[in-house]
Amino acid sequence: MRKIKIVRNYNKFALGSCLFCMGDTQVLCNATMQQGQPPHLKGTNSGWITAEYFMLPQASSQQRSSRQQQLTSGRSKEISRIIGRSLRAVVNLDLLGPNTVVVDCDVLQADGGTRTAAINGSFVAIYDLFQRLVSEGKLTQNPITKFIASISVGVVNGKKVVDLSQKEDNNAEVDTTIVMTENKELVELQFTAEKKLYDIKLLNELILLGWKSIKKIIRLEKKMFNLDKSVITL
Amino acid sequence: MRKIKIVRNYNKFALGSCLFCMGDTQVLCNATMQQGQPPHLKGTNSGWITAEYFMLPQASSQQRSSRQQQLTSGRSKEISRIIGRSLRAVVNLDLLGPNTVVVDCDVLQADGGTRTAAINGSFVAIYDLFQRLVSEGKLTQNPITKFIASISVGVVNGKKVVDLSQKEDNNAEVDTTIVMTENKELVELQFTAEKKLYDIKLLNELILLGWKSIKKIIRLEKKMFNLDKSVITL
Amino acid sequence: MRKIKIVRNYNKFALGSCLFCMGDTQVLCNATMQQGQPPHLKGTNSGWITAEYFMLPQASSQQRSSRQQQLTSGRSKEISRIIGRSLRAVVNLDLLGPNTVVVDCDVLQADGGTRTAAINGSFVAIYDLFQRLVSEGKLTQNPITKFIASISVGVVNGKKVVDLSQKEDNNAEVDTTIVMTENKELVELQFTAEKKLYDIKLLNELILLGWKSIKKIIRLEKKMFNLDKSVITL
Amino acid sequence: MRKIKIVRNYNKFALGSCLFCMGDTQVLCNATMQQGQPPHLKGTNSGWITAEYFMLPQASSQQRSSRQQQLTSGRSKEISRIIGRSLRAVVNLDLLGPNTVVVDCDVLQADGGTRTAAINGSFVAIYDLFQRLVSEGKLTQNPITKFIASISVGVVNGKKVVDLSQKEDNNAEVDTTIVMTENKELVELQFTAEKKLYDIKLLNELILLGWKSIKKIIRLEKKMFNLDKSVITL
Amino acid sequence: MRKIKIVRNYNKFALGSCLFCMGDTQVLCNATMQQGQPPHLKGTNSGWITAEYFMLPQASSQQRSSRQQQLTSGRSKEISRIIGRSLRAVVNLDLLGPNTVVVDCDVLQADGGTRTAAINGSFVAIYDLFQRLVSEGKLTQNPITKFIASISVGVVNGKKVVDLSQKEDNNAEVDTTIVMTENKELVELQFTAEKKLYDIKLLNELILLGWKSIKKIIRLEKKMFNLDKSVITL
Amino acid sequence: MRKIKIVRNYNKFALGSCLFCMGDTQVLCNATMQQGQPPHLKGTNSGWITAEYFMLPQASSQQRSSRQQQLTSGRSKEISRIIGRSLRAVVNLDLLGPNTVVVDCDVLQADGGTRTAAINGSFVAIYDLFQRLVSEGKLTQNPITKFIASISVGVVNGKKVVDLSQKEDNNAEVDTTIVMTENKELVELQFTAEKKLYDIKLLNELILLGWKSIKKIIRLEKKMFNLDKSVITL
Repeated sequence: MRKIKIVRNYNKFALGSCLFCMGDTQVLCNATMQQGQPPHLKGTNSGWITAEYFMLPQASSQQRSSRQQQLTSGRSKEISRIIGRSLRAVVNLDLLGPNTVVVDCDVLQADGGTRTAAINGSFVAIYDLFQRLVSEGKLTQNPITKFIASISVGVVNGKKVVDLSQKEDNNAEVDTTIVMTENKELVELQFTAEKKLYDIKLLNELILLGWKSIKKIIRLEKKMFNLDKSVITL
Repeated sequence: MRKIKIVRNYNKFALGSCLFCMGDTQVLCNATMQQGQPPHLKGTNSGWITAEYFMLPQASSQQRSSRQQQLTSGRSKEISRIIGRSLRAVVNLDLLGPNTVVVDCDVLQADGGTRTAAINGSFVAIYDLFQRLVSEGKLTQNPITKFIASISVGVVNGKKVVDLSQKEDNNAEVDTTIVMTENKELVELQFTAEKKLYDIKLLNELILLGWKSIKKIIRLEKKMFNLDKSVITL
Repeated sequence: MRKIKIVRNYNKFALGSCLFCMGDTQVLCNATMQQGQPPHLKGTNSGWITAEYFMLPQASSQQRSSRQQQLTSGRSKEISRIIGRSLRAVVNLDLLGPNTVVVDCDVLQADGGTRTAAINGSFVAIYDLFQRLVSEGKLTQNPITKFIASISVGVVNGKKVVDLSQKEDNNAEVDTTIVMTENKELVELQFTAEKKLYDIKLLNELILLGWKSIKKIIRLEKKMFNLDKSVITL
Repeated sequence: MRKIKIVRNYNKFALGSCLFCMGDTQVLCNATMQQGQPPHLKGTNSGWITAEYFMLPQASSQQRSSRQQQLTSGRSKEISRIIGRSLRAVVNLDLLGPNTVVVDCDVLQADGGTRTAAINGSFVAIYDLFQRLVSEGKLTQNPITKFIASISVGVVNGKKVVDLSQKEDNNAEVDTTIVMTENKELVELQFTAEKKLYDIKLLNELILLGWKSIKKIIRLEKKMFNLDKSVITL
Repeated sequence: MRKIKIVRNYNKFALGSCLFCMGDTQVLCNATMQQGQPPHLKGTNSGWITAEYFMLPQASSQQRSSRQQQLTSGRSKEISRIIGRSLRAVVNLDLLGPNTVVVDCDVLQADGGTRTAAINGSFVAIYDLFQRLVSEGKLTQNPITKFIASISVGVVNGKKVVDLSQKEDNNAEVDTTIVMTENKELVELQFTAEKKLYDIKLLNELILLGWKSIKKIIRLEKKMFNLDKSVITL
Repeated sequence: MRKIKIVRNYNKFALGSCLFCMGDTQVLCNATMQQGQPPHLKGTNSGWITAEYFMLPQASSQQRSSRQQQLTSGRSKEISRIIGRSLRAVVNLDLLGPNTVVVDCDVLQADGGTRTAAINGSFVAIYDLFQRLVSEGKLTQNPITKFIASISVGVVNGKKVVDLSQKEDNNAEVDTTIVMTENKELVELQFTAEKKLYDIKLLNELILLGWKSIKKIIRLEKKMFNLDKSVITL
């Protein structure tokens, strides 16, 4: 796993804000809670969490991508959805009332693993958002039920690799995104055969490899919150 | 698994065309090969496969959805991408030349499992498309390397279920889409905890459960192609 | 006139649903009634009927068309409007209350005459929709005042032709769409000189030619409803 | 028929430009010829004519309409198409070479009959455009084969009316747009039953009524071109 | 300064309407007052004024521009904003109540100075709009506090020029738009170095040069309103 | 003037990259040079510079703004244009060849003065971009002809203020953006009366006030480049 750096309260206006760095990948995650619910919750008292993943036009080593393209690209939408699902899995939505938490994940620099950094940064951002809303009396308790973290694992040139860089990702035979809780439960798993086909045994090995990193990230975040640190690295 | 019905050559104009029905879910998959490559292949002689998933406005039991919404929804884009990746994993893209295969997956009736029906129908449609292109001398051989099939598995009220209907899907604790080859290799796997969190052991059980259905679907398709049947049911 | 096949209740979720086939042209028409009125009816108790015509990307013998193009194309919008006007002409909108009937017309296979098949299929779909709404107590009576049907007529190589196929349409000197009631009243008439110019006498001959087919279609539909048949052919 | 006023060369930059007024309706029609063909003509040496109808936001007595709405409205697209078809019917497209004539029809003031004024103004604009291109040596001859004109006819409170104002249009039982050549040939005919249903006899009466006005408009235009007048009224 | 021509009440449906001509530049400005406020005024009783600048596709001597492009172009939006700001600076918005004045500025012919003609024409249009609303009892008094006018000044081939034509504008070294009140106060000033860099002294000279024309335009408008003239020229 | 902090090479993939902070305002400016020219330069060997200003959804103290809104907002487009014009005024475009420099200005945190910070950061970013292109042999010399800097000045509660914060901006009577060269030449000047009207004398005082800060910023940048510092503060 590459070097990790977490900066809390990066943006002074956003209620929850975290710059999450994994290697040279940097994702700025800002969280806010707005009034209103998606249509399918109308009539209930339950809230919702949604995320918007966006890569800045010159964030990656590849050619400049246009903002309009980023905004409507299937890739951005697919990643936005996995972030939202991951967060909702460990938040008691009934505690939010008829409100929607929106997390904006802006990739400032992209060197692989942007979706996992976005999930990790979003988790930190909503944790801080909820703490602040509790202290302001707008929530009765922090609705997060468990800690989660995310990591990418894959097979590159026949070798299992964790936290792939952009270069490794481009050569990956298999690419997997894992989101797990502190209790080793699965939240999201996306396995994709890119260049080679493997069986279920490999999948299990990749999950266990990923779990080792996920444990470390969760431990780091807990330490950061317990000691109330603004910046922490691993 | 619900009843399966496969209709080949459903549309007489599309070169590859398949209506794939699983229970009350019906997806019409039309495939064509067009000149041109995506930007990242420019300069190579390799082709590409892409899919477009679209749900007709009144296809499902829920409220009418607008076409514009369908076209830009994250859900449609996420599903389109998994279809494309699944097909590309078992097609030798170098044999296509600088061309792009486009598969349109139109959901005529939606009762759960539309993405797995779309993957299965798309596979049949490109198989027939390639056969026709071979017979017309436009391809030297069918570039498909292996058969694949897809199935959804999940946990509903604590019980493992295969090929979930819309009603089961709405109550699922865990929802998983599996795409595997005839050799039991994993192509795509998307696991999502919806209401409850489970561990890796459950994931393995779900994959094995899904594999049983995948085997049956692949066997059915092989029989259909071997006997050159227009319609086949299971 | 080419062979006609009408399938009622094609989609099990849509309240009104009809697959209307004329020759190799197949249009799926689904109808629903939603709350709400267009702006110009606000303040009244009158309802509205609107239609959306859409051709599936690979429906026709010509090149694949993109969905975005279909959605915004002038041709689609022009046809949607003629369908809506035709239906409104024979429905007592005051009986609908402040609601809007939406008919989605998806062309599954296009071999000429898609707009006339869409009008015919839409009529069957709203007839069944209204019957169901009456039986559910949501409407006091079926608001349809008269039966209508539509047919295309034209001149191809100097000869008058009814129900033009795609190939005939491409060579037509004159192309006309006729919508008439069971009482031989005109609902909509669109005459277009494509390659040659003719006078009013020809127009009258074309209308009389079309009327013969319209009569047959209306008779077929009445028989279908009276005998409560699911499928009927001519 | 209401008062007609035709202003040629209204815009000094457009090669063909005409302000066509019918009663209080004013439509500015500018025509230009651009390089390029629509896809279906690629490979031929034939040209094309297309039109874009657009109503300025505060042109009509009704509420301000937004430009975005105007640009994508079905009504605008339907009218744009009838203008284009009408012009193409009397232009020898082979003489244009691989070029496209674009006519922009901007409704400055809308008091009914905007589509017929747009057709009439467009005809004058392309006539002058072609004359200028001939004089500049860019065309060998004016490709217009016949004069056309357009008029609206309808039934209001049981009485047949020609050139309906907005107020008459709102109360019309039947609304018909007629485009005919100087030889009494039909180019386009759009008949719509709005509030009442009539038979074929009425249609013939309406056509003959319209023909009287069409004759007058064509005579006026011929006089204007022959005397090379800038402004002419009727 | 080029010849000026002002036509009041150009469009008979718009409550405020002015065709403002400067040289060969013609801008049609229509004004209306609608219910509703922008979000940032919600909860207050204050109104707003906004403008929409739009150039007709063939208005200028350059190539035809598409409407979609015009609608979203940065240039159109920048000009729309300066018009809105200029008008708001001399209108007591509190007198409008929770309403929004919208001014549509359609450039019929563009020969330089379209933005200044649009500001001048918009001022005349809202003046008449407010007068009419006062006479209809919908406003208690005309909320305009001062007269404004706008002119462009610049440096062309080393010489200071006022009211630049398109040709002069294309060769300008410096381009400045000035909006001032009848009391010589600055409302908006936009100075742009296009080809050469000058110091503050030049800026002051340009402002004084512009002020001379602004005075004349304001005097002309006052005369027009005092004498209640429909058309006035300078 | 508030505290300034400049971070060079903020993004490791962008060829020119600068994080420019003024007070709590932070703008990340990334610059790249792409092949291609805007239409009006086709046929010449001259290049172009364009900028895209974008505010991250939760960057400011106000409500979250949607990305789609930001992308199409008039404010974003107006600011993008002033950045582009300012840079082009001091770059010899002929030295760029048929290429376009694109500067993306992403506002990470917005506390007033985002447009001036964007201009300043963009200047640093293109300076470094050009240096790098020179060292790679892709440009023969740095095409920048002069240093520029930008500052906002205004009147708040009757007092002249420089480098306005968001709070000051909201209360400003007059708001002015100034861009000047190291030689005290004017590049861009945008003066807007927001709540009160002043005369030319005030404008001159504001310009001189702004010039003091501009001098300091340019001096700081020159020091940074001369000493080749990565980070510098004032």
